[in-house]
Amino acid sequence: MVKYATRMSGVSGSIIREILKLMADPEIISFGGGNPAKEAFPIETVEQIAHEVLDQNGANILQYGTTEGYPPLRSSYLEYLAHPKGVQAKEENVLALTGSSQGLDLTSKVFLDPGDVVLVESPTFVGALQAFRTYQAQCVPLEMDDEGIDINELEEKIRLHNPKLLYVIPTFQNPTGKTLGLKRRRAIAELASKYDFIVLEDDPYCDLRYRGDVMPPIKTFDKTGNVILLNSFSKILSPGLRVGALIAEPDIVRKLTVAKQSSDTHTSNLTQAIADSFLRKGLLPEHLKQVNAMYTMRLDAMLDGISKFFPKSFHHTLPEGGLFVWGEFPGTPDMPALLKRATQEAKVAFIPGQYFYTDVTTMGLNTMRLNFSSSTPERITIGLERLGKLISQGI
Amino acid sequence: MVKYATRMSGVSGSIIREILKLMADPEIISFGGGNPAKEAFPIETVEQIAHEVLDQNGANILQYGTTEGYPPLRSSYLEYLAHPKGVQAKEENVLALTGSSQGLDLTSKVFLDPGDVVLVESPTFVGALQAFRTYQAQCVPLEMDDEGIDINELEEKIRLHNPKLLYVIPTFQNPTGKTLGLKRRRAIAELASKYDFIVLEDDPYCDLRYRGDVMPPIKTFDKTGNVILLNSFSKILSPGLRVGALIAEPDIVRKLTVAKQSSDTHTSNLTQAIADSFLRKGLLPEHLKQVNAMYTMRLDAMLDGISKFFPKSFHHTLPEGGLFVWGEFPGTPDMPALLKRATQEAKVAFIPGQYFYTDVTTMGLNTMRLNFSSSTPERITIGLERLGKLISQGI
Repeated sequence: MVKYATRMSGVSGSIIREILKLMADPEIISFGGGNPAKEAFPIETVEQIAHEVLDQNGANILQYGTTEGYPPLRSSYLEYLAHPKGVQAKEENVLALTGSSQGLDLTSKVFLDPGDVVLVESPTFVGALQAFRTYQAQCVPLEMDDEGIDINELEEKIRLHNPKLLYVIPTFQNPTGKTLGLKRRRAIAELASKYDFIVLEDDPYCDLRYRGDVMPPIKTFDKTGNVILLNSFSKILSPGLRVGALIAEPDIVRKLTVAKQSSDTHTSNLTQAIADSFLRKGLLPEHLKQVNAMYTMRLDAMLDGISKFFPKSFHHTLPEGGLFVWGEFPGTPDMPALLKRATQEAKVAFIPGQYFYTDVTTMGLNTMRLNFSSSTPERITIGLERLGKLISQGI
Repeated sequence: MVKYATRMSGVSGSIIREILKLMADPEIISFGGGNPAKEAFPIETVEQIAHEVLDQNGANILQYGTTEGYPPLRSSYLEYLAHPKGVQAKEENVLALTGSSQGLDLTSKVFLDPGDVVLVESPTFVGALQAFRTYQAQCVPLEMDDEGIDINELEEKIRLHNPKLLYVIPTFQNPTGKTLGLKRRRAIAELASKYDFIVLEDDPYCDLRYRGDVMPPIKTFDKTGNVILLNSFSKILSPGLRVGALIAEPDIVRKLTVAKQSSDTHTSNLTQAIADSFLRKGLLPEHLKQVNAMYTMRLDAMLDGISKFFPKSFHHTLPEGGLFVWGEFPGTPDMPALLKRATQEAKVAFIPGQYFYTDVTTMGLNTMRLNFSSSTPERITIGLERLGKLISQGI
C-alpha cells in the first residue's frame, strides 16, 4: 500500500458531517445542520438567470475562463457587496472562489509552512481547522466573551506564538452566533499591522442580520494590506452553486491565483455568471428581506423555546443574525449520551459543542450548537420542548 | 510583509497562460491555446438541461451537496463513461471533481511529501508540473518515443528514484498528441503493483478519437488498486462548467474526499447535474460524432499544411485524436525569436515546446506545440503557410 503524505495523518474527515448522516431520519427535528432553509432558495429566479446568461453569453461561459474569476462577477461583487460595506477595493484585489471554503484552502496553501501557528476563535468553524491542519499548522485557541475574542489575550498570544494567521468569523460566528465588537475589529486590524500577520476574515453570515446595527468588516480598518476578506454566496443565494470571492492586496491575490491555477483552474463560469446576474438585477436586497424575515421568526421561536423549556442554568447566546444559537450547561453533562437519547427517543438532534474546539476530547464538553434555519417555528418549538424534557430528566 | 509558505517559492504561474494573453489579438491565427472549439459547445442543450434539472430538483441542487459528488452523476459517470471503457468500478470508487485538474491537486495533497519523486512524461502538461511542485515534489522526466514512455527506462528510473507517483496522459497526450501503446499500458500497471507506487492516469482526450483503435485505460489492467484514473467533461462537453471525476480504490477515495472537504466542500451541484443529464439523455455519442468530425477536418488541414509549407526536416507527430500536433526542428533554432516574428509580423502564434519540460531553460528548445482545435481548416492552412514562410527564411 502506497503511503499517504504526512500532512494527512493529522487530519480526519469532519466528525460533524458523520453525525449529520446519522440524523438523516426525516422524522427527526434537526438543530444539527448548518444549511440555509430550502425555502430560502430562489429556484425560479436562478432558472431564469441560467437561461439568460447561457442565451446571451453561452460560448464564453462554456469555454475556459480566467483563474481570477468571471470578469463581470469580479466587478459586480465589488459594486453590490464589498463597496456598500465600506471596503475600498478594485478588481485587482478580487479573486473569485469555488465557495469561500476554497479561500481557506488557498490562503493556507500560500501562507502556511508546517508548524506555523494559526490563532483561532474557540470554538470555531471545523472546516477551517481541517484546512489549516492539512497544511500542518498548529491551531492555537483564543477565548471568547459575548463580543468575541478578547484583545488583551490576543496580543499576549501574538507575542507568545508569533502567528502567521489569525482566523476570525466576525459576524454571527459559527458555531456561537456571536458578533465581534466594533472596537475589537479596529484593534485586530491594528495588531495585524503592528505584528505583521495575516487576518483571515471569514464573513459569510454578515448579510443575515435580523436586528441590531450593521458592523463594518475588519478589512475596512486595514491600512497595511494584512487582512484577507472572504465572502460567500452560499448563505445569501445558494451553497450548491459554490461561489465565493475574496479581497486582498494585489500581490497576495497574484499568489492565491497561482495556487488556484493548479487547484481547479477556475471556478465554474456558469455559477459565477448566475451570481453576477443576481447582483446586477438588484435582486439581492429584496431576497434578503424575505429570507431574513423568515429566519427572524425561526430565531425567535428558538429563543422563546429555550427560555420556556430549558433549565434556567442553560447559558446561551442571543444572536442578532446568522444561523446558530450556542449554549452551555453547568457542570459536566454527558452530552454524547444526551445526543443518543435525543435522536433515538425524542427524535430531535443537535451538535455537541466539543467538536468545534481545537481539542475535542477536553474542551467544550458542556456545550451545544443549535441551528434554527432549517426548521419551521412550529417544529422548532416542538423540538425544543422534547429536548427540554430530556434535559430536565438529568444529563 | 508576511512571508509566503516555502512551497510557493518553487512555483510560478503558468508561463503559457502569460504567452496566451499576448496572443489575444483577434487578427492572430492562434495555434497556441488548448481550448475546445467554441463551435463544439452544445449551448442550447445545456440551456435546456439547466432548466430541466432546476425545475425538477432545484431545492436539492441549490442546497449543500455531498463531498463525494452529486449521486446521480457518480452513477451515470460509471454507466456511460467508465464501464464502456472496460473499467470495473462501483460508486464507492468515484469522486466527482471541480474539473479533472482538481484531481491533480487532491492526489498531490494526499500522497506527496516534500522531496517525493513524481515521474512524468517529457514533455508533459504544465498544470500537472505546477500541482506537483506546489507540494514540493521533485519531477523526474521520462523520455518518450512514438508510443509514449519506454518501459525499460521507466523501470530503471523506478529503481533509481523510488517514486511515489507516475503521472501519465496515455491518450493523445498534451502536448505531443502521442498515444501510449497497449503493451505499455499493461506493463505500467504491472510495474505499479510490483514497485508499489501510484499511477495517476489523466485521460481527458480519449474520447476525441478521429481514427485508429480505441485503447483501454491503464486502470483496466490494475489488479492492486495502484492506478487513479482521471476523467474530464472539459473536452467532451464544456471546460467552463468545471466537472471531472476520478476512479480509485475506496480507501484512496476516502482520503481524497477528506482533502476535498477542506478544498471546496463539494463541486457545484448545478454543473454536476448538467453533466449527469447530458449523459443520461444519451446525448454524448451523437455530440462526439459531430465534434470529432469537425476536429478531424482541422487535424487533416494541419497535417496537410505542415507537409506543404514546413521544411521536410520538421519532424512531427501524427496524432489519431486530441487537440495537438507536436514538432521538432533540427539543430538549435531560436524559437523565442520565431515566436516574436510570428506573432508580430505573420500574425500567427504557437507555443514553444520548452515550456512543457521539467527544465524549461535547457530542454525542448527546438520544439513547438501546434493546436488545431481552435481554428477553421481554412485559417489553419493560411496560418501554416505564413508560419512556413517565416521558418523557411531561417530560424
